[in-house]
Amino acid sequence: MSATTIKSRAAVAFAAGEALKIVEVDVAPPQKGEVRVRIVATGVCHTDAFTLSGDDPEGIFPAILGHEGGGIVEAVGEGVTSLAVGDHVIPLYTAECRQCKFCTSGKTNLCQAVRATQGKGLMPDGTTRFSYQGQPIYHYMGCSTFSEYTVLPEISLAKIPQEAPLEKVCLLGCGVTTGIGAVLNTAKVEAGATVAIFGLGGIGLAAIIGASMAKASRIIAVDINPAKFEIAKQLGATDFVNPKDFERPIQDVIVEMTDGGVDYSFECVGNVKLMRAALECCHKGWGESTIIGVAGAGQEISTRPFQLVTGRVWRGSAFGGVKGRTELPSYVKKAQSGEIPLDVFITHNMPLAEINEAFHLMHEGKSIRTVIHF
Amino acid sequence: MSATTIKSRAAVAFAAGEALKIVEVDVAPPQKGEVRVRIVATGVCHTDAFTLSGDDPEGIFPAILGHEGGGIVEAVGEGVTSLAVGDHVIPLYTAECRQCKFCTSGKTNLCQAVRATQGKGLMPDGTTRFSYQGQPIYHYMGCSTFSEYTVLPEISLAKIPQEAPLEKVCLLGCGVTTGIGAVLNTAKVEAGATVAIFGLGGIGLAAIIGASMAKASRIIAVDINPAKFEIAKQLGATDFVNPKDFERPIQDVIVEMTDGGVDYSFECVGNVKLMRAALECCHKGWGESTIIGVAGAGQEISTRPFQLVTGRVWRGSAFGGVKGRTELPSYVKKAQSGEIPLDVFITHNMPLAEINEAFHLMHEGKSIRTVIHF
Repeated sequence: MSATTIKSRAAVAFAAGEALKIVEVDVAPPQKGEVRVRIVATGVCHTDAFTLSGDDPEGIFPAILGHEGGGIVEAVGEGVTSLAVGDHVIPLYTAECRQCKFCTSGKTNLCQAVRATQGKGLMPDGTTRFSYQGQPIYHYMGCSTFSEYTVLPEISLAKIPQEAPLEKVCLLGCGVTTGIGAVLNTAKVEAGATVAIFGLGGIGLAAIIGASMAKASRIIAVDINPAKFEIAKQLGATDFVNPKDFERPIQDVIVEMTDGGVDYSFECVGNVKLMRAALECCHKGWGESTIIGVAGAGQEISTRPFQLVTGRVWRGSAFGGVKGRTELPSYVKKAQSGEIPLDVFITHNMPLAEINEAFHLMHEGKSIRTVIHF
Repeated sequence: MSATTIKSRAAVAFAAGEALKIVEVDVAPPQKGEVRVRIVATGVCHTDAFTLSGDDPEGIFPAILGHEGGGIVEAVGEGVTSLAVGDHVIPLYTAECRQCKFCTSGKTNLCQAVRATQGKGLMPDGTTRFSYQGQPIYHYMGCSTFSEYTVLPEISLAKIPQEAPLEKVCLLGCGVTTGIGAVLNTAKVEAGATVAIFGLGGIGLAAIIGASMAKASRIIAVDINPAKFEIAKQLGATDFVNPKDFERPIQDVIVEMTDGGVDYSFECVGNVKLMRAALECCHKGWGESTIIGVAGAGQEISTRPFQLVTGRVWRGSAFGGVKGRTELPSYVKKAQSGEIPLDVFITHNMPLAEINEAFHLMHEGKSIRTVIHF
């Protein structure tokens, strides 16, 4: 029995800089290798806001944003073998085809199988499954979780245990996994290491969890908003630094605090000046800094090459270096066991109708994550 | 029987920008933990020229330059246990004390035991062993190999086999080891990897040897002087790129040549723009770029952070990540066996009296290395 086009409530970004509009869109059936998913819940992430603002040079409109979701398979297209109707899934903006040279390299999670079309807001066959009043609506990051129903390639879905609460583990679709994975997968922080985390938003807090899981001996939390320090402490941070409390560069402060610098640092903001500070607070000889935050278009990082020649390493991480289909299920299990405490991230819950309020809260720094319930 | 002050022929840098003057200096006996060495031969390196030019903000005058030497122990100070008179040695500008937190970290060769005084042109006790007409002459990089006799801390000397020809293995005191070590120790290039080497001076050619030793599948040699390509080919380079042959950025050319970029790149010039090109010619997902060249004072590297977030890694290397006392003897053995072909680096040999000519040849790009024989 093949699926048909269905109606779906969705928050549509019709144009950059405008509020999302809740409308009823048409969602075509999944094509070959595709899966249609009923989204149960979705987080709202800064990247959604960045694209909505119009500052994202790759932003395409009209589109259905959202990339941090949890859902249930509603229909599968021809040839889909790894998923069946009723399976619980987390959409992946970084696919995992297990066949491209990236997937088979053993060195990266950056599968390129659907990258070209995904970047254009399209499914791999070059078309869209969404339409509104007969006009096409674009996909976003291959996920479009701000719609009750969405369509994804089979390789862009991680199958997770049925028992996991979708309205919580949806956060593993982006920020939380990104922060923890950057610490455990990308930097490979070892027990006893010293760590500095720059920025205590969702990703920074997740990085603190990762550093705690790695049994780091010292976790220095850095933010210009001291209201964030309490939750950072709950998650395992041991030291708290507000750059506004110091006249001198924050990297100098941290180098002093740590007798030479930290073993690992993480930039979780997207500020290129902070990326430099994060590198330069690392210990001579071995300190490694990982960039997680996404900088504005055209911005550049810089430092004196002497920083690298004397042994520091500068790297970056996307989706925490996590291969979604293979590794995300274990993250879900760690959330179920409490090792990854998702509740601390969820400061607000609201229905789809109020999604613009979720953006407001985020812009005002009043939320870590708002979860939208369909 | 304790040593006394002796006379020594030396090429002294009396002031920045002036030619070296060959004079007879006084060399005091080695103090506690120190060793006096008769230098048999020394290479002349770009770093010597950089300091002599006056562009090195840390340059101190008058000084005896030179840091790429080979010699024989002439006298040992109190408490020296690892070396005896007659031992053959290579001076190390990066000491190896085996006790500081850098040496014991297992992560770096950047021993800091004598760094503070070495940077000031002094021995660890804060004084100098050189004088001329009663006035002190400063040490340089802890080595001062442009003197027939020099004094070093015991921890700054690698003991090597007596059979090794000092007039050749002296080159392992800097450039050759730096280039090979950056490939093998720092980047850890694996068999089958693709490699790009930027700059075909002594260090770049040594990096090509390192890449050959690592059994890299493709070694792309990059230089604006195509006269360097023949020797690069002899050492194992497989592809040759002259940036002047292309209108577009050289990183784009290499990314195209390699279907996405190289696995490893090495900057061996000290040009910050080239450092960026070297990073950006690396493959998305896993490419690693290592900075070996030393940039001018105050210069900075820059790139878009996206380069790192999408999986490239930026690192640097000093003395090839090689721990001198522990690892240099094995480099000497590889030179004796021919695995490291030192002869290709030695384009000129001359007596100390002609050392200024060695600087001229280097500035004009006519030499790879000139070896000075005492």
